[in-house]
Amino acid sequence: MKNILIIGAGRSASACINYCLENAAERGWFVTVADSDPEQAEKRINNHPNGRSAWLDVNKQNDRMDLISRHDIVVSLLPAHLHLLVATDCIKYKKHLVTASYVSKEMYRLGDEARDASLIFMGEMGLDPGIDHMSAMKLLNDIRAKGGEITNFRSYTGGLIAPESDTNPWHYKFTWNPRNVVLAGQGTAQYMEDGKYKYTPYSRLFKEYVTIDVPGMGKYEAYANRDSLLYREIYGVEGIPNIIRGTLRCQGFCDAWNALVQIGLTDGSYPIHDADKITYHEWMNAYLPRGTGSVKERMAAFLGEEIDSDVMDKLEWLGLFRKIKINVANATPALILEHLLLSKWSLSPGDKDMIIMQHEIDYQLDGKEYHVVSSMVMKGEDENDTAMARLVGLPMGIFVKLIIDGKITTTGVNIPVMSEVYEPVLEELEKYGVVFKESEVLVEA
Amino acid sequence: MKNILIIGAGRSASACINYCLENAAERGWFVTVADSDPEQAEKRINNHPNGRSAWLDVNKQNDRMDLISRHDIVVSLLPAHLHLLVATDCIKYKKHLVTASYVSKEMYRLGDEARDASLIFMGEMGLDPGIDHMSAMKLLNDIRAKGGEITNFRSYTGGLIAPESDTNPWHYKFTWNPRNVVLAGQGTAQYMEDGKYKYTPYSRLFKEYVTIDVPGMGKYEAYANRDSLLYREIYGVEGIPNIIRGTLRCQGFCDAWNALVQIGLTDGSYPIHDADKITYHEWMNAYLPRGTGSVKERMAAFLGEEIDSDVMDKLEWLGLFRKIKINVANATPALILEHLLLSKWSLSPGDKDMIIMQHEIDYQLDGKEYHVVSSMVMKGEDENDTAMARLVGLPMGIFVKLIIDGKITTTGVNIPVMSEVYEPVLEELEKYGVVFKESEVLVEA
Repeated sequence: MKNILIIGAGRSASACINYCLENAAERGWFVTVADSDPEQAEKRINNHPNGRSAWLDVNKQNDRMDLISRHDIVVSLLPAHLHLLVATDCIKYKKHLVTASYVSKEMYRLGDEARDASLIFMGEMGLDPGIDHMSAMKLLNDIRAKGGEITNFRSYTGGLIAPESDTNPWHYKFTWNPRNVVLAGQGTAQYMEDGKYKYTPYSRLFKEYVTIDVPGMGKYEAYANRDSLLYREIYGVEGIPNIIRGTLRCQGFCDAWNALVQIGLTDGSYPIHDADKITYHEWMNAYLPRGTGSVKERMAAFLGEEIDSDVMDKLEWLGLFRKIKINVANATPALILEHLLLSKWSLSPGDKDMIIMQHEIDYQLDGKEYHVVSSMVMKGEDENDTAMARLVGLPMGIFVKLIIDGKITTTGVNIPVMSEVYEPVLEELEKYGVVFKESEVLVEA
Repeated sequence: MKNILIIGAGRSASACINYCLENAAERGWFVTVADSDPEQAEKRINNHPNGRSAWLDVNKQNDRMDLISRHDIVVSLLPAHLHLLVATDCIKYKKHLVTASYVSKEMYRLGDEARDASLIFMGEMGLDPGIDHMSAMKLLNDIRAKGGEITNFRSYTGGLIAPESDTNPWHYKFTWNPRNVVLAGQGTAQYMEDGKYKYTPYSRLFKEYVTIDVPGMGKYEAYANRDSLLYREIYGVEGIPNIIRGTLRCQGFCDAWNALVQIGLTDGSYPIHDADKITYHEWMNAYLPRGTGSVKERMAAFLGEEIDSDVMDKLEWLGLFRKIKINVANATPALILEHLLLSKWSLSPGDKDMIIMQHEIDYQLDGKEYHVVSSMVMKGEDENDTAMARLVGLPMGIFVKLIIDGKITTTGVNIPVMSEVYEPVLEELEKYGVVFKESEVLVEA
């Protein structure tokens, strides 16, 4: 078993591909990188003797099945909704599968079939989800091993821009899929607070952020990330009164993003009329009730902001009130926003991104209460070699190695919460600078 | 051609069924009423010699096709998403089809097939959509016939409770499908104002209502109804600077309904945990940020309302702050709300409902500007014989008669905007009390 197929050669694929190629040389693996853009795949391989590229339109069933049948392990870096196609083929041809995406209900339904065929289908094997699960489980299990009882679990991750490359008033740049950034949070966030279920609809998700302190880094805003309740059972903390997973942003981001949500700019469900003809100024006007004053003034009034507030400054900086053509035909609000943000939030040459992950755990031991904060901060090298790409890609690469080395006994559809996975993966990640700093305080009982 | 199949025997079916049965006796028609509840169908037939009931699970293809194949005209009163099943069979067996629902894109795609087979597929043949289209088209075409140029078109309809039966602080009771009332407006409303496209996302639809005056009735609130732009071409008013279709509610309704939307109670996309165990009080708490004070106090603060405001009174009256069990397992917020509202907003014996429809049209003729208001108010008899059931059902019944009498030449998938349809239907509806009062004023040029 030494033939690895990596499907997808986009920006976030490089770290995973490089890891596999580096190991391929000394271990005799062969790595195929398949993409709908064969030149891109070729570029990632970069003439490595153990690598080759393949052209793949993943919707072409025969091509896909042929390619998968000729490998032992498949790493799918495709958009999440396409993993199921690949997974079905993996069942058919008995291949292991690794992804960094949230495991869907449909994927979990393949669990029995995968287990029956002794296959390893590992999802959520990236950064968030991925390293967050692994580092959290290590913390939780270490506390449980010494007899502690977990009472609160809060975990936050943010893909941010490093302070030295922070050059805009949003304090944010794209370091992963822009479309996912625009659509982030749609649905209803669920978590548990003081023993009660909590629901935060999208329309107020970015209003109800909390501010957390990251040791040595300062304050960040955190908004609730999807359904945190799903992880109660998986983490083994069913009865816990507080559990929340959150996404980190720099201070000031959430209020301004909330303004975009309230206006309606993150909606991807219908096209804007004449989007190729109108200006941003006209587009904003289309959302505003009749009234007097400039579009900017009416927008400020609608949002309940002063005309020179930080939120209005951020909207102004985006150019939303400028009489410049949008120039995107048949586009939804979300797509127009994505195009606009791409022109504003792209990494410049030399820009360093930054990942922050922080777990905050309370536990009781021998009648005393402890509060643990475990934080990891990692910066990228430049606009291509980002911390995001590394931390999404390396866990998958390391996990592929563990499969090939026969170190993984867990079969079926899983996420990385078992020690046979997280111990070796976290250990190897440390060599790449993924180091958590832990501080524990005794809380007065 | 005299065999009529009416699928669906629910509350809104009675007027259509009665109309068909009344005509059946003198014209020798046969009317089959099919429903998944055969007793209900039997009850609607009420031993009429020209009627018979049939048991039909519409998802059973063979039963459905068998029944459709043995009739000449099909009236589908099914939930909107099921019409397509029936329509496909109607194409196959060459039967005409009538519904009161919005015509979906999928339904429109059957247009060529229906036309090739000389079939009449008429949708939006109820009240709203239905009588609104017909009465609007009559007004518009009458103005155009005398040379007038339409400049503004606004049309409002409300299914309300008559003032004499208005016994609750919401001034509203259910007179049609409660689920549709709870989910009403989800998506983004689109219309045109002063020559500009306007978009109102659901999250502020009930905030941005307008107040309109109905002659002799007083003031009502109107919120934008779906995509009004769809009707520009159909109504022949492509270049019109103002077009909006709206839904009417009594004053005070929209602000309070907006509160339910803002809390998150109209969301039908995810289940509430332990919905069979918790109280309404606990449920409300689940949406509120941490804080001090009672759930009601924190809710008022969250909504930006005084504790004794009209909005808070309406929420209180619903029992949202009471420590009473919800008692609905695995329910979404929307379903819990629907259950609660059913216990509060159902018609009592003797209750009269009330339909209000009002068109407001501006036009120019010979250099002068005119403003026309055309209004229709109709009350029901009691909680069973509602104006809603009559005005949804009668147009379909009358249209069936027109088909049988060979008066309809238009084939394919349509909505009732052609004079061969609206003239005779509106004329006959007048006998049932559907009378529009028109007033026209000359606006100073």
